[in-house]
Amino acid sequence: MVDPANILEGLKARRPASLARAISIVENASAGSEALLGGLHSLVGGARRIGITGPPGAGKSTLIERLAAHWRTGGLTVGIIAIDPTSPFTGGALLGDRIRMERAALDPGVFIRSMASRGSLGGMATTTGEVADVMDAYGFDRILVETVGVGQSELDVASVSDTTVVVLVPESGDGIQVMKAGLMEIADVYVVNKADRPGADRLRQELEVAIGLKSGQAFRHVPGHHGHDSSETRSSEGGKAKAKDMAWEPPVLATVAPRDEGVAELSGALDRHFRWLERDGGLAARRARQLERRTREVLERAVRRWAWSDAAPRAALEAALADVASGRRSPYEAAAAAVERIRRSERA
Amino acid sequence: MVDPANILEGLKARRPASLARAISIVENASAGSEALLGGLHSLVGGARRIGITGPPGAGKSTLIERLAAHWRTGGLTVGIIAIDPTSPFTGGALLGDRIRMERAALDPGVFIRSMASRGSLGGMATTTGEVADVMDAYGFDRILVETVGVGQSELDVASVSDTTVVVLVPESGDGIQVMKAGLMEIADVYVVNKADRPGADRLRQELEVAIGLKSGQAFRHVPGHHGHDSSETRSSEGGKAKAKDMAWEPPVLATVAPRDEGVAELSGALDRHFRWLERDGGLAARRARQLERRTREVLERAVRRWAWSDAAPRAALEAALADVASGRRSPYEAAAAAVERIRRSERA
Repeated sequence: MVDPANILEGLKARRPASLARAISIVENASAGSEALLGGLHSLVGGARRIGITGPPGAGKSTLIERLAAHWRTGGLTVGIIAIDPTSPFTGGALLGDRIRMERAALDPGVFIRSMASRGSLGGMATTTGEVADVMDAYGFDRILVETVGVGQSELDVASVSDTTVVVLVPESGDGIQVMKAGLMEIADVYVVNKADRPGADRLRQELEVAIGLKSGQAFRHVPGHHGHDSSETRSSEGGKAKAKDMAWEPPVLATVAPRDEGVAELSGALDRHFRWLERDGGLAARRARQLERRTREVLERAVRRWAWSDAAPRAALEAALADVASGRRSPYEAAAAAVERIRRSERA
Repeated sequence: MVDPANILEGLKARRPASLARAISIVENASAGSEALLGGLHSLVGGARRIGITGPPGAGKSTLIERLAAHWRTGGLTVGIIAIDPTSPFTGGALLGDRIRMERAALDPGVFIRSMASRGSLGGMATTTGEVADVMDAYGFDRILVETVGVGQSELDVASVSDTTVVVLVPESGDGIQVMKAGLMEIADVYVVNKADRPGADRLRQELEVAIGLKSGQAFRHVPGHHGHDSSETRSSEGGKAKAKDMAWEPPVLATVAPRDEGVAELSGALDRHFRWLERDGGLAARRARQLERRTREVLERAVRRWAWSDAAPRAALEAALADVASGRRSPYEAAAAAVERIRRSERA
């Protein structure tokens, strides 16, 4: 039997065994999981959370490993949550990659957790956020969440991150695709990784044009602003007008992760974005939105559990299942009848 | 205002405009969506549903387009649901691919619908199943559902399909990865596409070994059964022992989709799998399980909607949100309190 208070004490004392145990409990929504999360809620908020997303093969894991190494040099501790099932962190990797990841795993200042991207009752975003909370309460300075940017997961990662990094490679296809896939809505920082490959410059230019168009609509930027003159072509810093200081324009960075090229610049861009979030108040608002979203999901999970376990609603739901299985009703008619029955029992 | 009865009549009369309208209503869960789905429930069940999943770049869309063309030659009508955001069907394609897909789209016997893989309240599997129901009620003979096999989506596709096809390419990485990613749990048929590339034979052999190991555990197959002697190396047909007739061993097919190589064989394997499902009763059981899963999700959606709209539960949930926002309670404590309040109001 899990004793949440014990594990919570272990987390506060920074015992690695308690950390691993707490994450397992939370990831599997085991008994005691909600008591544990409730108990550590007040300890959460010290870590910066960075989501890293992008297509499979974009080199996200290597970039994360290099970024973690960069931060370790500066004395920061790093928690890594890998959700991408094709990630080297989760075992789906060539031997060379695996060895490099294992080297990171031997450093006590780095904790790597790979998660199966399925099966969680509350949805992936909720579970990821809860695991990040455990790492945050434990005291990691930085938490990196890696997801593959296909479909839903890139929205999930944005919903648990202070900063979202979209990693692309020249092979990712044309820049238009980025907008289509919804990545543009969530990117705070773009990385063109494998920037030594053909097409990298073209991809960067396309991204910059797309960002300029988007910002232009929102903030009426002066045309001609979109030329690039350094490896980081957009930045909210420098002597710009006030409207520009308030808005964040995602910078487009170029990296070659295995050679550490651009990794320090990426770390700098993340720092700048975080400072920008703190300065204009966006950080508190963003975290409040995320907490509200999480709360809604936790509430819905609790209501769902109540409905399937408490005698009256459960009888209504099971009658509905039986009606559908026997062909008497469609799922939709059965659901309407079940809710009507719950509503009546509530008002009785 | 949507009139579900009108649209239902249009579906029965096989009016394409009604089909497109009905799918939009269901996909967006617009007003009238549940009435429409309830009304067409009795018309569902005539189509065979085939899920096609696999990593990005495996050539799923081309394979689907060739398979649809093959069936059209035989006079069958085909509905295609593409969920993969990188699919050519959804616009993320090279020009050549797009033109080919558009050619398919000009045939009135083929209906292609691409879906955004996000935002749906009931979860992707539910919405996909509901869109497939609309196509089924309209009268399509075959429904193909394309999803990218990363994370959750490959389980979703299995939950709405009679037959699940896992498409791999030599570049997909070693066969072990397939087991890890959970694809092995759901594959009824394997396709090694781009089979003219280096590594294709090795991938096929690895898959066959993995399938043999898995079947061996379950059914104690005689060693030595795993040699391959044709382009389709496993089949439930032929003079085998009864235990083997009852079990389905996923065949491993080789295709080169743009050249139509192996497409007729894939169609044949799908027919065999469907006949096997019908013969041993697995079809009814599989569809009943899917209907139960769907019903549970529709019930939970209805309970969720009730909880946020009916006065008493809504007051409890909103008090919980306020408690968390103000920092008085963690989401978990607030949820426990909200459920206790709902429970008391129900028993009052």
